[in-house]
Amino acid sequence: MSERLNWGLIGGGEGSQIGFAHRIGAELDGKFKFAAGALDVDPQRSREYGKRLGLAEDRAYGNWKEMLDAESSRDDRIDLVTVATPNETHFEISKAFLDQGFHVFCEKPLTTRLEDAKTLVQTAEEKQRVNAVNFGYSGYPLVRQMRAAVQRGELGKVRVVFAEFAGGFFADAADADNPRVRWRFDPEQAGVSAVTADAGIHALHMACFVTGQKVQSLSADFSSSVQGRLLEDDSMVSFRMDGGTVGRLWTSGLAIGRAHGLRIQVFGEKGGFRWEQEQPNQLHWTPLGEPTRILERGAEGLHPEADRASRITVGHAEGMPLAFANLYRDLGDHIQALKAGRESDPITRAYPGFEEGLHTLDFVHAAVRSAKEGSRWVEIG
Amino acid sequence: MSERLNWGLIGGGEGSQIGFAHRIGAELDGKFKFAAGALDVDPQRSREYGKRLGLAEDRAYGNWKEMLDAESSRDDRIDLVTVATPNETHFEISKAFLDQGFHVFCEKPLTTRLEDAKTLVQTAEEKQRVNAVNFGYSGYPLVRQMRAAVQRGELGKVRVVFAEFAGGFFADAADADNPRVRWRFDPEQAGVSAVTADAGIHALHMACFVTGQKVQSLSADFSSSVQGRLLEDDSMVSFRMDGGTVGRLWTSGLAIGRAHGLRIQVFGEKGGFRWEQEQPNQLHWTPLGEPTRILERGAEGLHPEADRASRITVGHAEGMPLAFANLYRDLGDHIQALKAGRESDPITRAYPGFEEGLHTLDFVHAAVRSAKEGSRWVEIG
Amino acid sequence: MSERLNWGLIGGGEGSQIGFAHRIGAELDGKFKFAAGALDVDPQRSREYGKRLGLAEDRAYGNWKEMLDAESSRDDRIDLVTVATPNETHFEISKAFLDQGFHVFCEKPLTTRLEDAKTLVQTAEEKQRVNAVNFGYSGYPLVRQMRAAVQRGELGKVRVVFAEFAGGFFADAADADNPRVRWRFDPEQAGVSAVTADAGIHALHMACFVTGQKVQSLSADFSSSVQGRLLEDDSMVSFRMDGGTVGRLWTSGLAIGRAHGLRIQVFGEKGGFRWEQEQPNQLHWTPLGEPTRILERGAEGLHPEADRASRITVGHAEGMPLAFANLYRDLGDHIQALKAGRESDPITRAYPGFEEGLHTLDFVHAAVRSAKEGSRWVEIG
Amino acid sequence: MSERLNWGLIGGGEGSQIGFAHRIGAELDGKFKFAAGALDVDPQRSREYGKRLGLAEDRAYGNWKEMLDAESSRDDRIDLVTVATPNETHFEISKAFLDQGFHVFCEKPLTTRLEDAKTLVQTAEEKQRVNAVNFGYSGYPLVRQMRAAVQRGELGKVRVVFAEFAGGFFADAADADNPRVRWRFDPEQAGVSAVTADAGIHALHMACFVTGQKVQSLSADFSSSVQGRLLEDDSMVSFRMDGGTVGRLWTSGLAIGRAHGLRIQVFGEKGGFRWEQEQPNQLHWTPLGEPTRILERGAEGLHPEADRASRITVGHAEGMPLAFANLYRDLGDHIQALKAGRESDPITRAYPGFEEGLHTLDFVHAAVRSAKEGSRWVEIG
Repeated sequence: MSERLNWGLIGGGEGSQIGFAHRIGAELDGKFKFAAGALDVDPQRSREYGKRLGLAEDRAYGNWKEMLDAESSRDDRIDLVTVATPNETHFEISKAFLDQGFHVFCEKPLTTRLEDAKTLVQTAEEKQRVNAVNFGYSGYPLVRQMRAAVQRGELGKVRVVFAEFAGGFFADAADADNPRVRWRFDPEQAGVSAVTADAGIHALHMACFVTGQKVQSLSADFSSSVQGRLLEDDSMVSFRMDGGTVGRLWTSGLAIGRAHGLRIQVFGEKGGFRWEQEQPNQLHWTPLGEPTRILERGAEGLHPEADRASRITVGHAEGMPLAFANLYRDLGDHIQALKAGRESDPITRAYPGFEEGLHTLDFVHAAVRSAKEGSRWVEIG
Repeated sequence: MSERLNWGLIGGGEGSQIGFAHRIGAELDGKFKFAAGALDVDPQRSREYGKRLGLAEDRAYGNWKEMLDAESSRDDRIDLVTVATPNETHFEISKAFLDQGFHVFCEKPLTTRLEDAKTLVQTAEEKQRVNAVNFGYSGYPLVRQMRAAVQRGELGKVRVVFAEFAGGFFADAADADNPRVRWRFDPEQAGVSAVTADAGIHALHMACFVTGQKVQSLSADFSSSVQGRLLEDDSMVSFRMDGGTVGRLWTSGLAIGRAHGLRIQVFGEKGGFRWEQEQPNQLHWTPLGEPTRILERGAEGLHPEADRASRITVGHAEGMPLAFANLYRDLGDHIQALKAGRESDPITRAYPGFEEGLHTLDFVHAAVRSAKEGSRWVEIG
Repeated sequence: MSERLNWGLIGGGEGSQIGFAHRIGAELDGKFKFAAGALDVDPQRSREYGKRLGLAEDRAYGNWKEMLDAESSRDDRIDLVTVATPNETHFEISKAFLDQGFHVFCEKPLTTRLEDAKTLVQTAEEKQRVNAVNFGYSGYPLVRQMRAAVQRGELGKVRVVFAEFAGGFFADAADADNPRVRWRFDPEQAGVSAVTADAGIHALHMACFVTGQKVQSLSADFSSSVQGRLLEDDSMVSFRMDGGTVGRLWTSGLAIGRAHGLRIQVFGEKGGFRWEQEQPNQLHWTPLGEPTRILERGAEGLHPEADRASRITVGHAEGMPLAFANLYRDLGDHIQALKAGRESDPITRAYPGFEEGLHTLDFVHAAVRSAKEGSRWVEIG
Repeated sequence: MSERLNWGLIGGGEGSQIGFAHRIGAELDGKFKFAAGALDVDPQRSREYGKRLGLAEDRAYGNWKEMLDAESSRDDRIDLVTVATPNETHFEISKAFLDQGFHVFCEKPLTTRLEDAKTLVQTAEEKQRVNAVNFGYSGYPLVRQMRAAVQRGELGKVRVVFAEFAGGFFADAADADNPRVRWRFDPEQAGVSAVTADAGIHALHMACFVTGQKVQSLSADFSSSVQGRLLEDDSMVSFRMDGGTVGRLWTSGLAIGRAHGLRIQVFGEKGGFRWEQEQPNQLHWTPLGEPTRILERGAEGLHPEADRASRITVGHAEGMPLAFANLYRDLGDHIQALKAGRESDPITRAYPGFEEGLHTLDFVHAAVRSAKEGSRWVEIG
């Protein structure tokens, strides 16, 4: 085991799920040590919570600028910073840390404005910094199995991918005034899209991740069924990918009956996959003309990409925290390779980068345009 | 039990699934007696097979015209004729029997040309004849439960309906020259649409049947992934219904992994349904904010519409033949009421009529147009 | 198609499920014509109901003795009689018809007294008559697939079979005084066993049917949890079969949550099966060291025994009535072969005979003895 | 957040699953700091691996005795020691640490000899030390939901509990000489029982945990189907519990088709539960006479015992590591309460103690006796 890398977190204050998730994810494999943080928008709470989480007094910062300054000049400066602040601040913080040469892991969506995302991609490229966006579901072993199978040609050409993120999260009309819900459908706060931009991009990224393709053009239909909503609570996007695959993306906040609703189906010339996040330890694989197989996470016969993303014995459920931790492990491997002057194994670069984050934003903006213009086909990028 | 009705069948020759299905369906409840038939395009085979199936010598006809003539002048003429011949003959035969005052049950699609379907609807209306199209899946007890629940307002306004008929039936490229497959993708034989017109309309009809609505406008994307196909093997249609429901219809012949693939999800203000034909004896019902319930066919607490469509004790699987038989039972009830000069119970008129058949054709033609014109929105009807 | 066989039914009066099931089952394939019946214990109702079901006036009998006399002297006498009367009358009726040379299909349990069952087996043997007991679940195509796979050695030696029939049918204590329930737990009416004798024997027969073995010895535990019950409402029996397989049979009427609860698991050296009646169109097959396969009824690649028991296209649900009809079809094939002086295909003799009925009674009586004597091991037969 | 507790680990050397699981479990919530360890039987590897895992040089011990001596005299001595060494050493180590006043968390089985387990229970009682055995599956939120529902009387009297741990782990005869497998069926190494003692006790503990009862008497059948095995590879135990519940425990290593196979069904007067470890985020709950509900981990409406055991948002899968971590969190809460002189919340004492460990050993020994003596009923304890 190599020396632990130093890791810093911005956002993720007390009581937040996202902070908890990142801390488990980063520390789970012992690759990262939680070394610095600016966890709360209130400086005092930020410092106190940081100390309570075990940060050294001088690295429990009051805000991210203080943290940037101090860390920039330390010898043991953090090797990776995670940006888990409100969406509209992602750009400024990520840009500032990149500019100072830090590797950055940003929450999704990468930015709220499209041009900002392009700037980040460019900056990361110029600075040659490791960059990642949290499409955490891509860390599931069986999602990686699908991708590996596609890469090895086991499906032949992928003809159709159907991705969905459809649950009943925003189905309760009585919830419409709940502040936790309302802002999501308010263009001033949420931007151009609600469920597509928030949930749909996870499913879209998975479609890209598994097929290894990007979207070239799309036709979208957005609808809003709960009174008073200005942004969509259900959408369907048909698209074409650069490898010739036909895509469908269904996003819904009205789909009562699914606790979560992220699901993907991939159909190639030689077989089809079906997987859903709610029962992530089983993958349905149907070779053309043969019975469906239930592939179990951790079982023998999976590809190395899936094996290395598994941690516990077959049959024991692994959940989202371990899946998410795989992104940190990959990031850790990559950063360690860089520090050692080694090439990192391409397999470890499976984590989604800023470019993937930008692509999902491109997609959302194009979908919004198409939906506004009678579902006409719109080119991307 | 009333006197049995006399029933005649056209098409459904030896070895055909569809003939077997209709004979089981018609006779299962003892409402109909198989009394006349013109079962095969070859007159001799037609007569011989009819006799072997137990028809009287003089009612085992050589072709449908002979049958029409003879039955028209009998006192004990058939009370219902089923038209299960190749698609392009549906119109001529159905029209001829209607004109002679017979009640007609026609296989889907009702006709191959849109205007013919309109003529049939009009003729049936003028002649005041019972008319039905075989959207047999609507006979499943739990499909009727969904419809009854919607009618009673248990879902509140239905916001979104997602219907799909997506299986791997046409996924095998090696099958492309198989005559059983090839004609379906040949515009000269199949008309304007392949999987949407053939399979998709079952799912579309179910969406209409369950919501009690019709489609007003749509945007469609058709794609064809297997080389050499001129018609779509996968399609996505977004639509709006006349009661304000947003619809999605996904049809695919490429979806390897589903043996069948007919599935419907219905999301209202107060709850959501999920049902699939492959396991038709369970219906998932999720009231808003509560856990999902698994409703079992035949269980206590279902609506009368579902109860009367059930035949055997809860827990025992019922399949497609019994579902299909429910259409015949409803038709029989309706015809018996007419013969007795009674009003038939509206509940027994749940079977799909020519108007529903026409609506699905309207839908398909509009979808084809939309798909050709860049997925622009097209009005229906 | 050969001439239809004449079929007679005793019991199954108006409103009974069992009568409906037998009539569908017998007539479904056109092998049998419903020709004679004594359907009700009340002679007048018996005759009237028979006529309403389409029986000729002189074959709608008032009771079984009348029917036996009359049919015995007809040239077109019935080829098969089904005995679907109350359990305690099975013996007398079956014996009388066998003695007059009729083939007999008896409802389960074959008899209420063990010695009577032995007499029936012997009589049928002496008279060389076709005899069957209604373990109807054995007609499911995928149950026959399991049996065929075991016969062909695809599992290697079968090590363990776990059969269960566990549902919540008798879980409601408030139902204890319901006459439909009470008699089942009253030794005077139900005999020595309640759920084991009534439901458990279906699962036991399936274990025997699939493995091709009989039980040699057993150890049983019976329990009764609802106050006032004198017979068991839950039982577990461990057993050993004559081919070396270890068996477990769990029967329960308390297992709230299963609408039905018939389920079997078969584990051999080379693989394992899992199947349940509530979703009978899928069979889980796991070859040793490989992923589980979901075999679909009607799919390619199944054994002929399963194929011939399937009637409709893969993906469409088939249910219990079609499964049950397979027993009649097999009986019809066998009887037709006998009438033609042919050997019948062994595959068509898959239906359970009196010997199988006797074996399940032997099992129940041994289990009762074991349970009473501290679960000690008891030999069978 | 209180001060972290110091935690020590014995066993769990490099590459072991169990060591990884304990380290994640202990550290996940920040309650424990990994402060000391004797991780490997080889002293040098033990020290080196400990240091690589971040232990201070003087607390990366060469063996457990060294660790016991050193820790006993430190002011910041460990607050809890976990014993994850080979089974036959559990007793000696646990006893020694208890004697020095340490709180102890021991892997299952608690000991290999029954009398040793009794001694440990007694010692822990005398020393008033916190003691736990790793029945980690009891940490799953929905398992705790079942227990909480039973405690609140929601099922009424529990009539029947069916627990099973049946998978294909030892089904491969070719594996018989694999040392990882062979020792388990060798009485000299494994003791009196193979699968029952190793896997079955997890399911048994769950039955006790959920019902809140202990086993009073049992009847067992053990069988061994793979040639050369001297201990059972499949067993069925029927039992009676002190609250009147009838129990069934099925354990199998031959059940090809289950990747894991831990499953429990609980049937009371008012409803039934069904849960399986392979899909642990859904619990099937059927109130008497009503449809089955699918309860989702993390959803609203669960009991506080389940809520506090959940960490992430509903719909996101949680797996075994988080379940296991709940035992550590409960232990941490309990120890912190003791250190603060507070009473700990009974809810936090949900973790299984030495007494539960002893009970499972009692059960296994009684089952072995029963199986040897013709399945006769044996009293426990």
